[in-house]
Amino acid sequence: MDLSSFLTSLTTSFIIFVIFVLIFTWLSRKPGNSVIYYPNRIVRGLEPYEGVRTRSPFAWIKESITSTEADIISISGVDTAVYFVFLSTVLGILVSSGTLLLPSLLPIAGTAKSKDANSNSNFTSLERLSMANVEEKSPRLWAFLLATYVVSFFTLYMLWKAYNHVSELRGAALSAPGVKPEQYAILVRDIPAVPEGQTRKEQVDSYFRSLHADTFYRSMVVTDNKEVNKIWEDLKKYRKKLARAEAIFAASKTTGKPEGTRPMNKKSFLCGEKVDTIDYCNKMIDTLVSKLETEQKNTIREKQQSSAFVFFTNRIAATSAAQTIHAKKVDTWTVVEAPEPRQIIWSNLKMKFYQRQLRQDIVYVIVALTVLFYMIPITFISAFTTLKNLKKILPFLKPVVDQPEVKTVLEAYLPQVALIVFLALLPKLLMFLSKAEGIPSLSHVVRASSGKYFYFIILNVFIGVTISGTLLRTIKEIQKDATFKKIVDLLGKNLPLSATFFLTFVALKFFIGYGLELSRLVPFIIFHLKRKYLCKTEAEVKEAWAPGDINYATRVPNDLLIVTIVLCYSVIAPVIIPFGVAYFGVGWLVLRNQALKVYVPSYESYGRMWPHMHGRILAALIIYQVTMIGYFSIKKFLYSPFAIPLPIFSIIFALMCRRKFYNSFRYTPLEVVCAKTKETPNLEAIYKAYIPPCLSSYKFDETQEFGHALSAFSKTGSSV
Amino acid sequence: MDLSSFLTSLTTSFIIFVIFVLIFTWLSRKPGNSVIYYPNRIVRGLEPYEGVRTRSPFAWIKESITSTEADIISISGVDTAVYFVFLSTVLGILVSSGTLLLPSLLPIAGTAKSKDANSNSNFTSLERLSMANVEEKSPRLWAFLLATYVVSFFTLYMLWKAYNHVSELRGAALSAPGVKPEQYAILVRDIPAVPEGQTRKEQVDSYFRSLHADTFYRSMVVTDNKEVNKIWEDLKKYRKKLARAEAIFAASKTTGKPEGTRPMNKKSFLCGEKVDTIDYCNKMIDTLVSKLETEQKNTIREKQQSSAFVFFTNRIAATSAAQTIHAKKVDTWTVVEAPEPRQIIWSNLKMKFYQRQLRQDIVYVIVALTVLFYMIPITFISAFTTLKNLKKILPFLKPVVDQPEVKTVLEAYLPQVALIVFLALLPKLLMFLSKAEGIPSLSHVVRASSGKYFYFIILNVFIGVTISGTLLRTIKEIQKDATFKKIVDLLGKNLPLSATFFLTFVALKFFIGYGLELSRLVPFIIFHLKRKYLCKTEAEVKEAWAPGDINYATRVPNDLLIVTIVLCYSVIAPVIIPFGVAYFGVGWLVLRNQALKVYVPSYESYGRMWPHMHGRILAALIIYQVTMIGYFSIKKFLYSPFAIPLPIFSIIFALMCRRKFYNSFRYTPLEVVCAKTKETPNLEAIYKAYIPPCLSSYKFDETQEFGHALSAFSKTGSSV
Repeated sequence: MDLSSFLTSLTTSFIIFVIFVLIFTWLSRKPGNSVIYYPNRIVRGLEPYEGVRTRSPFAWIKESITSTEADIISISGVDTAVYFVFLSTVLGILVSSGTLLLPSLLPIAGTAKSKDANSNSNFTSLERLSMANVEEKSPRLWAFLLATYVVSFFTLYMLWKAYNHVSELRGAALSAPGVKPEQYAILVRDIPAVPEGQTRKEQVDSYFRSLHADTFYRSMVVTDNKEVNKIWEDLKKYRKKLARAEAIFAASKTTGKPEGTRPMNKKSFLCGEKVDTIDYCNKMIDTLVSKLETEQKNTIREKQQSSAFVFFTNRIAATSAAQTIHAKKVDTWTVVEAPEPRQIIWSNLKMKFYQRQLRQDIVYVIVALTVLFYMIPITFISAFTTLKNLKKILPFLKPVVDQPEVKTVLEAYLPQVALIVFLALLPKLLMFLSKAEGIPSLSHVVRASSGKYFYFIILNVFIGVTISGTLLRTIKEIQKDATFKKIVDLLGKNLPLSATFFLTFVALKFFIGYGLELSRLVPFIIFHLKRKYLCKTEAEVKEAWAPGDINYATRVPNDLLIVTIVLCYSVIAPVIIPFGVAYFGVGWLVLRNQALKVYVPSYESYGRMWPHMHGRILAALIIYQVTMIGYFSIKKFLYSPFAIPLPIFSIIFALMCRRKFYNSFRYTPLEVVCAKTKETPNLEAIYKAYIPPCLSSYKFDETQEFGHALSAFSKTGSSV
Repeated sequence: MDLSSFLTSLTTSFIIFVIFVLIFTWLSRKPGNSVIYYPNRIVRGLEPYEGVRTRSPFAWIKESITSTEADIISISGVDTAVYFVFLSTVLGILVSSGTLLLPSLLPIAGTAKSKDANSNSNFTSLERLSMANVEEKSPRLWAFLLATYVVSFFTLYMLWKAYNHVSELRGAALSAPGVKPEQYAILVRDIPAVPEGQTRKEQVDSYFRSLHADTFYRSMVVTDNKEVNKIWEDLKKYRKKLARAEAIFAASKTTGKPEGTRPMNKKSFLCGEKVDTIDYCNKMIDTLVSKLETEQKNTIREKQQSSAFVFFTNRIAATSAAQTIHAKKVDTWTVVEAPEPRQIIWSNLKMKFYQRQLRQDIVYVIVALTVLFYMIPITFISAFTTLKNLKKILPFLKPVVDQPEVKTVLEAYLPQVALIVFLALLPKLLMFLSKAEGIPSLSHVVRASSGKYFYFIILNVFIGVTISGTLLRTIKEIQKDATFKKIVDLLGKNLPLSATFFLTFVALKFFIGYGLELSRLVPFIIFHLKRKYLCKTEAEVKEAWAPGDINYATRVPNDLLIVTIVLCYSVIAPVIIPFGVAYFGVGWLVLRNQALKVYVPSYESYGRMWPHMHGRILAALIIYQVTMIGYFSIKKFLYSPFAIPLPIFSIIFALMCRRKFYNSFRYTPLEVVCAKTKETPNLEAIYKAYIPPCLSSYKFDETQEFGHALSAFSKTGSSV
């Protein structure tokens, strides 16, 4: 790619970005769109605009910048604040590196007279500013070696500062005086078989009462809620349907036709006899309500699983219990800190120890295969979805497809479509796989899935693009002599060639990506379409604009990809640094706006994402350092071994951070929960927070029912 | 080695063993030797013989066999019982494998007609009974493949059973109703700097009182005892010397010379003026006593370190506290279960977090270098200690050394002597290195050192002997193309050739080793020499026969070497199995006798050695399986890939065992300490058990001294 086409693509992207910002400015001022641009405020019951009318089109930037970390924590939680720590850490690394590297390396590279550059007419002026322009064995390489150290040092220093800061944030949030139900509970899994003559509930109660005599409050046995949940969902569905039908019916009562038209529907999807919707729904709701009650009773009594939540009377006791090995056989009575009620994955709680281990192993194998060989099924599918096959399967497409223009386009793009569909579905697949591991909480699933996605994009996008051109050529060479050195060489040799590609990639990513993010064009269009054609009731409208959360599972790995790219090219082609700064700077601004006004977090993990981000920035740093070692040796720089200590030092740093910080993220330190809570905790409310919604409507007959999953007292307890 | 020389060496060893047994039978019946052969009983205050006079020479075998595990636990503790579980597990593996393999594999190998065997005159009749006799690609190899699976299966099954059993033993011992001080205490390290206006003691007390309000009993700040310990040791030394001088003086008062001769000595070693020993000692003791008191006061007040023991009022609280992360910064206030008072390594307690990590890393590097390159310094030293150099340095040796016979012998053996001295010192070096890591308890140091010794002997004795012959030839080949496959091939190719060597090695080891062990000739001789020429007082005699403990640090790795050897040859040359059975059978008998009557364990770790033994038996199994894969492919057996699942399965098994059992060895499960103790624990006595001996004589002035390391109450406490 030469300079002019690079500049063209850059300008185009920039214009698109400006258009997006203008659209945002225009649309966000219309009151009707406040649910799209200020849903977070509406959900929190605030006025969406707060004196907005008079403000300038760029007031949002000022608001983003002036908002403090405390604002973010109070509005969007610690997880979001930690995400901004991540963004500003990377920004800090890039700004400080750029300030030193750009004024020093660009002249050094630009004034060098490489033989390559002169003879090779493919050299663009961009490449003249990169290390590629420096000739082999040149003493100028010392500057680049020093720069490699500088970038590494900045990265480690910023990471260290950030880990300390996040650690503080987490500690402060955990020790906050508000009552958090999850701090009073632990999740117990792998409870052994119920002994003869005891109920599960009695077993759990007596076990924990004997071990935590003074602090045990009560327990809740986890039940298999699949059936009852289905009925409950059905009930919700019919209630919604009823509300919708009634709205339609009310709307049809025009002045011209005061009796209205009662809406009708078919009994099942597309077939069955037609019935009056309102009557039908009412009938169904009645049946389901009684069915729900029976199933609730049945679930609570008969479907008790081998796991339970155990509640304690104070935070210290629960925290301490969650970290203590309970049973002699450590594969029974395993305890962990209870997840927040809203992020519990109920269906995973019942999984047994070995089932979880097995599932984890299987998932790892599947993910490894997907990451390494995902092209194989794609190729297979795209081979299958040729035009010919399509025509055979869907004959009604024939008249359209046979048009010559359509045919050409389709034939050219069908294989890519398969790939795009796969890439779009990949995060969902990874979420599904992570869930299948048996992880009990949503935030943990997001972390697991984000990790898998990171491996995927680093391997396929970054290393894939870099090497793919030369891979086929060199694959035989690699197989013949697959040593580590070869891989380092390969990386070093090919990376610089793709510099311009990645420059464009980063630019595109932030102009288009953040433009779309800020303008929220897609949710805007979907919402307006839904409201116009689908939504009949207030609840449906509300559902249509529900903003969702920031979606770390794909956002973080994508950001990390950019970190990896920019770090790797930071010394080879320092011009990439401003693009990186722009990406994280604009990202910080736009997401700050979105966090303050749009997204509503669906869970809070108190910054447990941080060690993952930290670890992966370090991984990016090590990839960068290894690449540099390779590139220096390709440049036949005699002193390239001086770069070898860098990755070793990074690994030591990683181990040290793990030793110093990780355990306080993995567990809650006792120190942070020893602060007194503001109010005396209402233990009953804490307990009720953990009752799954589908069972919450169940009324107990306290006098009769002992030993069922939710009962207040065990037999021994009730005799008091 | 041909068959006849093998038989000769076997017979010789056997005769020596019989002689040892006879010596034991003869010596152990003499009452004067009871302190050598029954010290354990004497220490426990039992009658050493219990009607021994009439019994047969082999009564000890009957006693060993009839003693139960409970006997062993009550006499020698859980650690010894676990060692016997280890011995009997290996014995079980070998007996069951042997029963199946010997009758089936020996005929299959013996009747094969290998071309190699016929053409190669070096083949001994022993080798005719091994896999070496089976020709390439022979279908007979199926039997050996099957045998590989059989041995693997037996090993895994026995290990699983043993792990379960040891787990039970540990649980039972930990939950025993007796009061164990270490179950009421935790060791806290890395306490941050003392805040302004507080003493260390107050800091610790207030910290733990706030976190464990109901269960905190008191704390004891660890002090730097180096100085006070030195004075205390000196004091002990002079008291001993005084007792000895008085005994000599008393003995000199014969009827002929009733006034006696007062013993004299030089003030310092070999020089200084002569003084009267009794007076001198009395004077020194007086000075030291007052010096000790001053130094005790000084130590307790001024030399407080950043670690402490914290005592709790019940076992559950202490167990739970030891497993809970306390501080937000996990490198401060780190907690672990307190070691037994008798096995605390005081000088390690004060080490800081990063110092410990750094020391550990350095020690690992040193050990790795020692294991891999120990031959280099040895070669260097032996080059230096040539006869010529010796004569130069120690000229008085000249007349002796210049004798032609002596010269020949010395010249031949001097390099070996350096090696032997190194090997004899190695366990001490490894113990020293493990201690230098900053480990707080003796049992942990023994485990760490035993692990290091295992790597050393496996790498150097086993793999070293196997490969050394061919190594120099193949070293270039390896360097050129160091793939895993090459190493497997190398192992497979060379191992069978050393079969006879290792057969002899195992035989020698058990005949001579256990013969010496049973007869206790060395301690016997040393004791009698000491008693005759050195010991003057009762205490000195007692010290001379103190039996010491079983010394797992070298015993376990040596046993594991035999396990590795026997497992590796079990299928290649099944004749080795009976030797293995004999080794572990005789070992079991002899050590049972020694555990019951001789050794006195110096600590109790409740079987924490087991996971190490288990892991290393598994490592031996994997070495065996990899060797077999290599050997099958050398035999050009088409179906050798069928052996590949074996090591994979072993690794899965190892991971599973780790997940299932390890945590209950690493920590004390809460379940086992919830049993009520027999008596109400005397907390004061528990606390006193942890006062180091050199400080125990210190008298407190309770009314004045607050905030010093051992004080009973902090200011807040004393106001009650």
